[in-house]
Amino acid sequence: MGVFEVLLLGCGAALPAFNRFPSAQILNINEELFLIDCGEGTQFQLSKFNVRRSRIHHVFISHLHGDHVFGLPGLITSYNLMDRKDPLHIYGPSGIDDLITHILSFSSSGLNFELIFHPISDYKGATVMENINVKVQSLPLDHKIPTSGYLFTEKVNRKKLNLKRIQELGIPKEYWKKIEDGEDILFKNAERISNEELTLDSNPHRTYAYCSDTRFNTELIPYLTNVDLLYHETTYLDALKLKASENGHSTALQAATIASRSKAKMLLTGHYSSRYEFLDAFENECKSVFENVVIGREGMSVKVG
Amino acid sequence: MGVFEVLLLGCGAALPAFNRFPSAQILNINEELFLIDCGEGTQFQLSKFNVRRSRIHHVFISHLHGDHVFGLPGLITSYNLMDRKDPLHIYGPSGIDDLITHILSFSSSGLNFELIFHPISDYKGATVMENINVKVQSLPLDHKIPTSGYLFTEKVNRKKLNLKRIQELGIPKEYWKKIEDGEDILFKNAERISNEELTLDSNPHRTYAYCSDTRFNTELIPYLTNVDLLYHETTYLDALKLKASENGHSTALQAATIASRSKAKMLLTGHYSSRYEFLDAFENECKSVFENVVIGREGMSVKVG
Repeated sequence: MGVFEVLLLGCGAALPAFNRFPSAQILNINEELFLIDCGEGTQFQLSKFNVRRSRIHHVFISHLHGDHVFGLPGLITSYNLMDRKDPLHIYGPSGIDDLITHILSFSSSGLNFELIFHPISDYKGATVMENINVKVQSLPLDHKIPTSGYLFTEKVNRKKLNLKRIQELGIPKEYWKKIEDGEDILFKNAERISNEELTLDSNPHRTYAYCSDTRFNTELIPYLTNVDLLYHETTYLDALKLKASENGHSTALQAATIASRSKAKMLLTGHYSSRYEFLDAFENECKSVFENVVIGREGMSVKVG
Repeated sequence: MGVFEVLLLGCGAALPAFNRFPSAQILNINEELFLIDCGEGTQFQLSKFNVRRSRIHHVFISHLHGDHVFGLPGLITSYNLMDRKDPLHIYGPSGIDDLITHILSFSSSGLNFELIFHPISDYKGATVMENINVKVQSLPLDHKIPTSGYLFTEKVNRKKLNLKRIQELGIPKEYWKKIEDGEDILFKNAERISNEELTLDSNPHRTYAYCSDTRFNTELIPYLTNVDLLYHETTYLDALKLKASENGHSTALQAATIASRSKAKMLLTGHYSSRYEFLDAFENECKSVFENVVIGREGMSVKVG
């Protein structure tokens, strides 16, 4: 199967602390890169973790709070200085086009490349982007201002190898990727072996859901059913669940509850409040209701599916 | 004498490279802190170099290019989350109020503290701020968009110690600061020694000039005469002086020429283009026309006067 993994660039909440950067992630789906949220300093993190920024063509912004978007004007300016020519697609709640174009208007010169805005107003599973590789849908988050989560579904359907038959026929490993791609095989004495003979049913489409920032919101659950990897914000520990609700955020226990009730395969945490230096308690709290949790930290890559 | 020094938070030009942050400095004049320019990530640098950000009440922005101002919205948002109550004064070219208030309008809630904007339109030595400690004047920079330098002049006038007389009288060191402050001294058998007897003429007012971004601009020289410390941008080496002029920037040789012709006491460099990893050549080029140069690097503190 092709690569499908998320690289964490920023795991902090709104107030920077303990060298944690604000929200940003790079999602790699079959070598196509998607930037999800773009807090201040994201362009520095892209350099630090050796992401080739020219490979990013789509940016998904969850909402217009600074810790999710204040890195975008600087990234766009840098693209321009690097003489980018490819258009950049920007998805986010209505107003994002106004915010970004207004900021850039104070620099005298225009851009060398096109910004294509895709403002979102339907947060309930609307398809906001689709190509041959992936479909991206909005997710209803419950925050202080309009906020969209994003569900990424891989569209490429890789075949599952029939290893028993492959080994019987002695087909070497270098052929396996072609078989997964659905091709027949010409092997040894040029005898054609049909793909059907070498594969089982297709792998299901792999999925990644990004849910930040949001209160505990059961309305999300139908959209997340059986998701391979659920990123759900965990700004607080459950001792502060009242504060979480007031501020439009979730606790670790609440995130794990959403993961459990969605039958997610794995939970990834982040957006930790500046009051927490150490994260062990987040793991313990999540595991009390959902075992398969990864405590997100900057620079970490997590495989999807 | 009281402290008068500049701390460098960012020495990079517009395109981030080699872990250099974009422009930002903290000027400490007798324990009053001034933030000069505020590129993306300035709030992270304030934390890294242990600057108590609550002590900043005045921010001076040279111009509205991103690498000089994109850190300001995030810093303001963080101040708000930290429950700042003190007003924040923001000085910069006309439009800065529009830029910042428009960005902040996308977050739903207002601020807990007041932003007081002081838009500048006269760049030729106008007094833009003055209190009992310091006077700040605009400086004419020649860039692609309206840009102001800033000249900081200390107003407190410390007395110069008459060390010969002090030693004759055997006055211990713990009295010296009081003498510099202009006080008489009660010493040993409570005999009053007048301040006049213990001091010489006053020290001259110490001065710091901040000049970024600008083409080589001889119009600056009259404003900079005898300045104690001149920060002048050095985006390029002189081999690229044509490019420098096209882009509204200076070379190291040009900065040193301004320092020399202004009779500045010391030159401080910065705003290095992303094409230069190592900075030795900047020092050599400056020293070919002006000896007393400090090649600015992040985290460095430089004394004024």
